[in-house]
Amino acid sequence: MTHPWQDPALPAGVRAADLLARMTPQEKIAQLYSVWPGSNETPGGDMAPLQHALSEEVDLTELLPHGLGQLTRPFGTAPVDPAEGAARLASLQERIRSANRFRLPALAHEECLTGFTAWQATVFPTPLAWGASFDPALVKEMASAIGASMRSVGVHQGLAPVLDVVRDPRWGRTEESIGEDPYLVGTVGTAYVQGLESAGVVATLKHFAGYSASRGARNHAPASIGPRELADVILPPFEMAVREGGARSVMAAYNDLDGLPAHAHHPLLTQLLREEWGFTGTVVADYFGVSLLESAHGLTDSPSGAAALALAAGVDVELPAVRCYGAGPLDEELVNRAALRVLTQKCELGLLDPDWAPPATASAATATGSAVAPVDLDPPPMRALARQLAEESVVLLANPGDTLPLAPDVRRIAVLGPLADDPAAMLGCYTFPRHVLLDYPEVPAGVAIPTLLDALRTELPDVDFTADPAAGDVCVVAVGDRSGLFGRGTSGEGCDAADLELPEGQGELVDRALASGTPVVLVLLSGRPYALGRWADRCAAVLQAFFPGQEGGPAVAGVLSGRVNPSGRLPVSVPREPAGQPWTYLAPPLGRRHEASTLDPTPLFPFGHGLSYTSYAWQPPSVDDSAFPTDGETTLRLTVRNTGERAGTEVVQLYLHDPVGKVARPVARLVGYARVPLEAGASAEVHFTFPADLAAYTGPDGDRIVEPGELELRLAVSSAEGDARYAVPVTLTGAERVVGRERRMRCEVRLK
Amino acid sequence: MTHPWQDPALPAGVRAADLLARMTPQEKIAQLYSVWPGSNETPGGDMAPLQHALSEEVDLTELLPHGLGQLTRPFGTAPVDPAEGAARLASLQERIRSANRFRLPALAHEECLTGFTAWQATVFPTPLAWGASFDPALVKEMASAIGASMRSVGVHQGLAPVLDVVRDPRWGRTEESIGEDPYLVGTVGTAYVQGLESAGVVATLKHFAGYSASRGARNHAPASIGPRELADVILPPFEMAVREGGARSVMAAYNDLDGLPAHAHHPLLTQLLREEWGFTGTVVADYFGVSLLESAHGLTDSPSGAAALALAAGVDVELPAVRCYGAGPLDEELVNRAALRVLTQKCELGLLDPDWAPPATASAATATGSAVAPVDLDPPPMRALARQLAEESVVLLANPGDTLPLAPDVRRIAVLGPLADDPAAMLGCYTFPRHVLLDYPEVPAGVAIPTLLDALRTELPDVDFTADPAAGDVCVVAVGDRSGLFGRGTSGEGCDAADLELPEGQGELVDRALASGTPVVLVLLSGRPYALGRWADRCAAVLQAFFPGQEGGPAVAGVLSGRVNPSGRLPVSVPREPAGQPWTYLAPPLGRRHEASTLDPTPLFPFGHGLSYTSYAWQPPSVDDSAFPTDGETTLRLTVRNTGERAGTEVVQLYLHDPVGKVARPVARLVGYARVPLEAGASAEVHFTFPADLAAYTGPDGDRIVEPGELELRLAVSSAEGDARYAVPVTLTGAERVVGRERRMRCEVRLK
Repeated sequence: MTHPWQDPALPAGVRAADLLARMTPQEKIAQLYSVWPGSNETPGGDMAPLQHALSEEVDLTELLPHGLGQLTRPFGTAPVDPAEGAARLASLQERIRSANRFRLPALAHEECLTGFTAWQATVFPTPLAWGASFDPALVKEMASAIGASMRSVGVHQGLAPVLDVVRDPRWGRTEESIGEDPYLVGTVGTAYVQGLESAGVVATLKHFAGYSASRGARNHAPASIGPRELADVILPPFEMAVREGGARSVMAAYNDLDGLPAHAHHPLLTQLLREEWGFTGTVVADYFGVSLLESAHGLTDSPSGAAALALAAGVDVELPAVRCYGAGPLDEELVNRAALRVLTQKCELGLLDPDWAPPATASAATATGSAVAPVDLDPPPMRALARQLAEESVVLLANPGDTLPLAPDVRRIAVLGPLADDPAAMLGCYTFPRHVLLDYPEVPAGVAIPTLLDALRTELPDVDFTADPAAGDVCVVAVGDRSGLFGRGTSGEGCDAADLELPEGQGELVDRALASGTPVVLVLLSGRPYALGRWADRCAAVLQAFFPGQEGGPAVAGVLSGRVNPSGRLPVSVPREPAGQPWTYLAPPLGRRHEASTLDPTPLFPFGHGLSYTSYAWQPPSVDDSAFPTDGETTLRLTVRNTGERAGTEVVQLYLHDPVGKVARPVARLVGYARVPLEAGASAEVHFTFPADLAAYTGPDGDRIVEPGELELRLAVSSAEGDARYAVPVTLTGAERVVGRERRMRCEVRLK
Repeated sequence: MTHPWQDPALPAGVRAADLLARMTPQEKIAQLYSVWPGSNETPGGDMAPLQHALSEEVDLTELLPHGLGQLTRPFGTAPVDPAEGAARLASLQERIRSANRFRLPALAHEECLTGFTAWQATVFPTPLAWGASFDPALVKEMASAIGASMRSVGVHQGLAPVLDVVRDPRWGRTEESIGEDPYLVGTVGTAYVQGLESAGVVATLKHFAGYSASRGARNHAPASIGPRELADVILPPFEMAVREGGARSVMAAYNDLDGLPAHAHHPLLTQLLREEWGFTGTVVADYFGVSLLESAHGLTDSPSGAAALALAAGVDVELPAVRCYGAGPLDEELVNRAALRVLTQKCELGLLDPDWAPPATASAATATGSAVAPVDLDPPPMRALARQLAEESVVLLANPGDTLPLAPDVRRIAVLGPLADDPAAMLGCYTFPRHVLLDYPEVPAGVAIPTLLDALRTELPDVDFTADPAAGDVCVVAVGDRSGLFGRGTSGEGCDAADLELPEGQGELVDRALASGTPVVLVLLSGRPYALGRWADRCAAVLQAFFPGQEGGPAVAGVLSGRVNPSGRLPVSVPREPAGQPWTYLAPPLGRRHEASTLDPTPLFPFGHGLSYTSYAWQPPSVDDSAFPTDGETTLRLTVRNTGERAGTEVVQLYLHDPVGKVARPVARLVGYARVPLEAGASAEVHFTFPADLAAYTGPDGDRIVEPGELELRLAVSSAEGDARYAVPVTLTGAERVVGRERRMRCEVRLK
């Protein structure tokens, strides 16, 4: 007999509800927790610093008859051939299915921030590099490819993207973030979500919310933040990714917000996310985040107490453990609410279908016991995507004497710096195996990762290379971060910095290189911006590359050689001095340079800044309507021409300056941008259709309002006021309006 | 004919209302602004950086017929003999009275943070030093003396105390603050208010509110703060000073709170301050704070718009100018509300009385035109108070080898450091003339200010002094700050620091002194804590003295010689490393040292720490009731004995640790303290009567709640967990309770 929940013709919600009604309380709860296969077998596994919270030995034989909601990182923590990993996962799913009376598999999740975090999978650039590309379309392609590869081996959910807006770049997870502007983070992050979801993989928005605002940039520290800053800076990317990206999962953040931990934050997880934004997917805990309610936040004194708080607030799934949700009685209505969401999602993923099976290769291998067919997680098209994104993300910060691209007569290049010949220099913290094992001094990601020096040798076969700065025609100094987890790096999760001084004495290396008299090209491979005021004026050129992934070496080498014309723009401000944090460009007048303070936070290189090897002319823009109602819109048109002698890509940025409002607001904020690829001599017209909604901000009463009045639309090459090429005055007319779901900027680039 | 407003027998409110009813709109508004005599004549006057906001040339002849509410700093910005200043003020008052039909004088205000900020007035220690004394009774005496001296020359209102709780010690105004704990700030600040008000001078609580939480510690920058942190950390001192101190004025803060500037903050200035706390005095603007709503916060585009916003929010008086409130039409009802408050206060001060006259000396001088009688603003009793407070405020941080007090056989002392022989080293930013004139390289405060070297010569007449560290039996190195205004110092208003590195390369001086091999006694004369991790372990002793005022030299010398047994305790944590701000001890577990971050904010010397030349034994405490209801109280009794051979003062500190609550709360916070002066061998019993109210905190819904449950009362010598001598478990019983006006800790010290 077939029950309604087994009928693929019925809607997912109906099937899930039918199944739920057939479950015992224990079976329902079993859908809300997760098992991490092998986590106990990994001494020093990535969560070692938090594992005090997980002192459980899971007895699968006892557990599985109730079913199992989730599987945490089934590909495990050691290099495993992808096909074999898929087969092992399929086999584990079969064990799970066989043990429960509904034959339900678990929903399997993996990390995938810069690619599927598994051995032999393509390692893409880190999110700061996505931000630098200002290219959501490419990020979407990347995420779609990542999703397809995960789906092909039986993974259903990816724990990405990170939508935390950078508030203090000393935070170690800055490298996982897209930038310091919510519009940039929202648009690029939403593209990632769309890509991953288009492949059928559940995208997980993290960390909801406020994690990046932790006090002193200390990981997990409280976030001192009020509701307006939360609404205007932290939340917009999440709202965009839910409403427009179709994200099906949201991960709660470790931190508290003004005292209330995100994992117990009903106003955020339920009132805002579900009731206001209409989110219908699952809310998952960050690893051990439910336990932290007990062990660190002091909100309860027992695992079951923590579970009760989290479940009531709206955390549907405990990750990666059984500890709290499996600990004791839970309110049945709340369990039903969460389990219905989980089952609905499982149904959407096909996990309730009678004919569910693991992906073909894996199941075939399992069934026959034969050798598995090969799975390629790093095929040429993915490598090409990784290369393209890496190339687009390199930011040329300074090049005063046109030292770059390197002249054809450069015959000898000195290459210095701890990151110059290290493949690890290209990779962020959420990369296989960096994120999973303590004891990998090398980077056996299973894919080829040329170092910068490797790539330069390939790129410039006729050039000699030396490590002596004085012996080169030019000297390339590669400095920045080694990324790692919980103190094993200078950037990465748990690797917070006290200030923005170049780490590990690398500044002295730059000083020595400069002292040689050889022109110095400074290359930063880093997970955060570092203070460059001490050297920038003396360098021949400065390149900021963040962590560009496995193709990062060739990408940077290509920019140095001139094969690639740099088009990246800063997603974070680069400061002049190492101390004085926090600061980002989203500051009202009194938060910027100000006569009443000795401190001048004006950055050395502003958000949005980036140079090119060609030049662009911007013609005066036109605006369709210079006055339009608070519920209307207008279109701005700008013609940009490549006036140089080689192809390049200009990034046109649109900032909104609103001189008068009911609360203090940033002097300017990004509301639109367009990458404009142009052959030499070519022109393009850029259309920005600007709905008045974009002028909305959170007023004194907490509503998002659009007021009538004067605005200034600044067409600019960076967020610095001096970098606005044109300021277009417009007037909003009519009545003040409360905005619900914001209309978005539409942007079109027409080649002429 | 006598009108009701002239009748001293009637209540002030009735008289003020009667007078108000007789006034024209312009006369009412005139009560709400201020004139700063001579401010335009002072090139580079203290508000120069803000004076773009004040481009007015006040024409008194035109203005005065409408009356004048306020007079800003009538003693002016140049040294003037106090008696002559009083006479000038009296004469100006006569001009004001003669010009308006009601013959009303203006309400005259002056700065008085570390004493009446006038020439020849006693300069007391700065507020951090008050905090270090843990002696509210003495601070009250000081403020009472300050108030009496101001009243004697015709001043009605003093712009002190500063009740901002230190949140980031990089902030330049940290020196003006009492400390990083709201209970310490509240109790000491309230004592100041009681003292000033007891002399009939209106105390002004500033800065309301959140100023110390400015982002990056940049003066005037936005405060990222939520309502719970505001309620639990920032507001308690203000509430205490209003409810228990009887403060009659509150000054709005420059900053915005989560976007809403304090000067336009109706919820703070009206709903909380007046409607909830019952405040009936005046709310005054900070200098140019109303103008900043237009010129910097972007809340309006005109002076009259700024006035309308401020007046509606609850700012009654614009200081120090006429610019906004005098600019145009204002809502009459709001004007009436503010003017009634001003007139009521004027009535209380006697300014509505028909027989009002300036203080005797001044008016006599004016009337007769004869030479004025001398006025002594620095009489011996005030100097004695300044000395006592300075002595109580010196904190002995480290003395591992008992180098201090200096042994009788020390014959030669090397004295080094830029602050060793500089009277300016003793003084904070709000000191005459530092706060009023740009161009005083010296400190012609008009009072004798011995330097540390001067005082050591006096204290140790048989010792030789040298500037060569190697030539001394011991080497005293005096480092720290030069305080000043708007960039003219390393500490003080507008002198914010990027990190907590000893300024101006003084660390190298300490290194050099240590390299000499002579035992180094490090003396800090500073406006904020500095990172001492680089040296503390290698110093023979470390003294933290903040800015101890005109008697600071003898106080520090007395501690060095042993004449004074140090009893100060740190009101702020002293960090190990210069970077990594902000941090204070009021942090929940995840805000402290935490395995998930590389950063360890644990201070080198914790809040509350301080050593003595004698030793104390604490006997196990007793508690009257170890369980009591959430509306009850209990009494803790502790006997402390001086087990050493000389008299000393122990400071017993009581911290509350509440392991489980509805939001994340500090691991421990100060709820009581007692200075216990003890002769050698003597004992005293300390009684702390602890009402359950003290366990209140702001819960998820914004109410201040007391929950039933387990608490731990820690009797401690500092806030560090290892410094708790006894932990007394108590249980709150009964129902959860919402607390309105909190009952206070009562403390009694009984000598045995």
